[in-house]
Amino acid sequence: LIRSVGSADYRLPHTGFSYPASVPAAALAAEDADLIEHLAAQGRVRLHLTLTPQTLPDATGYNVVADLKGSEHPEQIVVVSGHLDSWDLGRGAIDDGAGVAIAMSAAELLQRLHLRPRYTLRVIAWMDEENGGGGHDAYAKTHVAEIAAHIAAIESDAGAGHPLGFSVKMSPKAVAALRPVLDVLQPVGSTVLRNTSVSPGSDIEPLVDAGVPGIGIIQDSRRYFDYHHTAADTLDKVDPQQLRENAAAMAVIGYAIAAMPEPLPR
Amino acid sequence: LIRSVGSADYRLPHTGFSYPASVPAAALAAEDADLIEHLAAQGRVRLHLTLTPQTLPDATGYNVVADLKGSEHPEQIVVVSGHLDSWDLGRGAIDDGAGVAIAMSAAELLQRLHLRPRYTLRVIAWMDEENGGGGHDAYAKTHVAEIAAHIAAIESDAGAGHPLGFSVKMSPKAVAALRPVLDVLQPVGSTVLRNTSVSPGSDIEPLVDAGVPGIGIIQDSRRYFDYHHTAADTLDKVDPQQLRENAAAMAVIGYAIAAMPEPLPR
Repeated sequence: LIRSVGSADYRLPHTGFSYPASVPAAALAAEDADLIEHLAAQGRVRLHLTLTPQTLPDATGYNVVADLKGSEHPEQIVVVSGHLDSWDLGRGAIDDGAGVAIAMSAAELLQRLHLRPRYTLRVIAWMDEENGGGGHDAYAKTHVAEIAAHIAAIESDAGAGHPLGFSVKMSPKAVAALRPVLDVLQPVGSTVLRNTSVSPGSDIEPLVDAGVPGIGIIQDSRRYFDYHHTAADTLDKVDPQQLRENAAAMAVIGYAIAAMPEPLPR
Repeated sequence: LIRSVGSADYRLPHTGFSYPASVPAAALAAEDADLIEHLAAQGRVRLHLTLTPQTLPDATGYNVVADLKGSEHPEQIVVVSGHLDSWDLGRGAIDDGAGVAIAMSAAELLQRLHLRPRYTLRVIAWMDEENGGGGHDAYAKTHVAEIAAHIAAIESDAGAGHPLGFSVKMSPKAVAALRPVLDVLQPVGSTVLRNTSVSPGSDIEPLVDAGVPGIGIIQDSRRYFDYHHTAADTLDKVDPQQLRENAAAMAVIGYAIAAMPEPLPR
């Protein structure tokens, strides 16, 4: 039994993996963990647990991929992405419906503004981020010969809160090439560029591990773990204005990279 | 089906009575009501409901009553009270465990300070506030001959938030007699005295209707309906400092009335 790792005090257990899977395991809402702690301090505690999970056989799922073809080098690719699957007790609005909407919006905004990128902007809605990463693993395997043609991989997977900027894993040269782009995002307030030593997103990790510059949107996540992996991850948690800010941040960074005269340096 | 009347956005349905009881009825969490509203705007909506309530036969419950006997007129009574029962999906910490604790604390504080009131301070933990008011009805019936000996009835039933003061139903003369007491509560910040035309508490209503001056603590209730009648009404929602402020407010107002040379005027 673990105390729920969520941050809300609304008796909502946060769900996720429990290992080893062969041992019955459960997450308790913070309030119930508190109660057991208080009782345990007074003596022996007996719990009656009814656990109903099942492990079903794997089913086939699909990444959804759409290309806005590049005008000069359509074979060169800039990925903008989020993931399609979610924990089933909520509706996956912030984890990660928002990310999928943000990635789709980036392409839609370029279309609407009649901006044709030099390289291909590839929108990916990853499947199976939550349950082992089968989608991004399959993508990396299928596209192994074209990994070198991936200029950058961008992901949004921390909700739809106000975008503060980007966490990146790339060379100092690439960071230097990207920095002027942030000026464009001054009105949106997305000006942070933070270097990380790990992949800035779980779905782009195979690409980043193969040397592709990786970018994740840094969202204001103060309320994210109030709702993440709970029954309350529903659409009302997505603020339309903040979603638009994220779409702007993803569109600007994606288009900037897809329109550079030379691909972002490795 | 009604949209939950609670104020939190954590997919917690607020529970309460549904009338008429012979028609299946349920409260939906705000998020689910939103979803149905969106779907209904697009066409016909079908719901599958599994409702499991039962109406069980009435069982015997008890008001719990304790007297701190008055030194001069023990037959004259000042009631301080909260209610014992609660909705069963939470633990009833704010509705109304807090009220019972506050009323008990009032008597306990007087004992600890060796303050003996002139009239009897009666602590009542009412039974059955939530399900029809059987407890306070029985009290009024049992004590019908002594109603005139009840100097005042005080209740706390809006949680344990910071006490801002008191809502009262009493004569202008009684209000005037009570106003100087508020000076003592300046350090606690409980200085509001608000006249109401209805009983300032549901359990003291039979006494107030019979002419007994009634007093309810006005709590800061900004978060009260986030938790009220939900699974999240648990002890962690009670802030110890704010609970102490309530105990102080109840003790001061209760003792002041129980120590006046003449009973509070009707």
